[in-house]
Amino acid sequence: MIKRLMNIMFLSGLILSNSVLSKTIDPLPSWVENPVKTKIIEFVNSVTDKNSKYYVAPEDRVATFDNDGTLWSEKPMPFQLLFTIDKIKEGQIENPDWRTKKPFSYVINNELEKLTRSDLLKILNETHTGMTVEEFDFQVKSWIRNAKHPKTNLPYTKMVYQPMLELLRYLEDNEFKNFIVSGGGNAFMRAWAPEVYNIPSERIIGSQFNTKFIGSELYRSPNILIYDDKEEKPQQIFQQIGRRPIASFGNSDGDLQMLKWTASGSGLRLAMYIHHTDARREWKYDRNDSLAKLDKGLDVALDKDWLIVDMKSDWRSIYENK
Amino acid sequence: MIKRLMNIMFLSGLILSNSVLSKTIDPLPSWVENPVKTKIIEFVNSVTDKNSKYYVAPEDRVATFDNDGTLWSEKPMPFQLLFTIDKIKEGQIENPDWRTKKPFSYVINNELEKLTRSDLLKILNETHTGMTVEEFDFQVKSWIRNAKHPKTNLPYTKMVYQPMLELLRYLEDNEFKNFIVSGGGNAFMRAWAPEVYNIPSERIIGSQFNTKFIGSELYRSPNILIYDDKEEKPQQIFQQIGRRPIASFGNSDGDLQMLKWTASGSGLRLAMYIHHTDARREWKYDRNDSLAKLDKGLDVALDKDWLIVDMKSDWRSIYENK
Repeated sequence: MIKRLMNIMFLSGLILSNSVLSKTIDPLPSWVENPVKTKIIEFVNSVTDKNSKYYVAPEDRVATFDNDGTLWSEKPMPFQLLFTIDKIKEGQIENPDWRTKKPFSYVINNELEKLTRSDLLKILNETHTGMTVEEFDFQVKSWIRNAKHPKTNLPYTKMVYQPMLELLRYLEDNEFKNFIVSGGGNAFMRAWAPEVYNIPSERIIGSQFNTKFIGSELYRSPNILIYDDKEEKPQQIFQQIGRRPIASFGNSDGDLQMLKWTASGSGLRLAMYIHHTDARREWKYDRNDSLAKLDKGLDVALDKDWLIVDMKSDWRSIYENK
Repeated sequence: MIKRLMNIMFLSGLILSNSVLSKTIDPLPSWVENPVKTKIIEFVNSVTDKNSKYYVAPEDRVATFDNDGTLWSEKPMPFQLLFTIDKIKEGQIENPDWRTKKPFSYVINNELEKLTRSDLLKILNETHTGMTVEEFDFQVKSWIRNAKHPKTNLPYTKMVYQPMLELLRYLEDNEFKNFIVSGGGNAFMRAWAPEVYNIPSERIIGSQFNTKFIGSELYRSPNILIYDDKEEKPQQIFQQIGRRPIASFGNSDGDLQMLKWTASGSGLRLAMYIHHTDARREWKYDRNDSLAKLDKGLDVALDKDWLIVDMKSDWRSIYENK
């Protein structure tokens, strides 16, 4: 009888709450035991401890994560661009003239280096606009279910960082609300990220294409309305979340303003850069990268003593089981 | 022993879930028993019943509410304008020249009818921008704690509609996510609405002033970036929520596009207008109102058989105990 009672109490959460469990079971098993991991755990313990002077009420436990290069890989280029390329190549069946028509021909013939900035916008508009928002969501879902990464041959959703999945889960277990704040398209991410990261769509903030309400339907329409990078990140966090995060995670100079705004708030704050140092298991790049430069941000992080994750030495695995 | 066990099971939610409770206790006591109330309850029962062909998974149970005139009163003008007027009047102490300087003098001398559109923007910019986002939040919180409505003499937060509070709670108990989608300012609403409606700040969508990230701080800066009304409502719902609502609630033509988008989705949908018909307990206005016209929307609602709440006859009370 006692055992049955214990069982019921266990199941109903009366005895072991998640936060108690997380103190006995390592919440971050893919993180090497070192100061970075210790500081993350100390931060979470402090802001969740009602007796700590750094205690933060659950509704203010806002954590914001960049996506490309912070939660999943971004090489050889952001995966949304690989989606774009796949869609153009697929589109040549219905549009055979694309094979000779610039800028589509550049994509079809793998001459991406020839694309100008306005060419890029043209192929983005072609693949991302003109349909209803539901049709686009369906297209991204179909793509991500089947597409494989050109180098690893893994599905893209298997190229999310296992240590970051553990961190997301750990924060969630401690009543944080996790948000994505990315330069990637909001609709592109919302098609798969809620399932992969357990983050609901309203907490996924990204770049925005225009939309147009016609009749009773909402259409995606040409040109980028908001490019959610640099200063725009704290601005969009304010417009869409309405609170300053207490923890932020990024990997490039595009995340610097978000990390600065987070770090300069009152109380205890966590600002963290993921530093891509692992050429063997992932990619190695920072100050001179053309797409995701981490240069000024690295200086600020070193100067302000923000956490810097050395992917090569701080993470036991990069992807699940890898 | 059995009793103790039952007690534990009860406390732990194993026996009586909220949804079971809500079937035995009237979830909408301020709503008169009539077809409107019945249809709301039937809708909620259908979309939450796993055996119903209209079942909707919790993550898709998105409900969007206009605020002014839908969740709280909006007469003699939207309360954010009353805040603006109070701030200008208060500001004359530090700015004595305002007493003779247009357009501030119009506000101070109660000659609001003289304000042009650009005057209005000027006083909005004066009272809503120039400070950090945290300072503005503090100002709205201070105001709403002390301010009283000019006619009812009630605190503004006591002018929220009791039946709508019950509806918000009822939907929440049935695992809906409630969102505000209002023409009011997002920061203005977020200063008090999370507490009053139990809706977290990231689910409060409104009009946006510009912001500017300077140094490590975020400042509110002049001019309106997004006016969240008409077509902009479904557009912002998409940009900020990422899913089409299954239930929407409004009270003016400015909500029509939101209601249309909601109603035209697949499956069972709930689109509802609050019709201000009660001159004695609240205000009576619709087709000819200059600030919150309900004209075209009323025609569409009648034509499409959307729910129309007649405030006078459908609501037992308007405000709490009133």
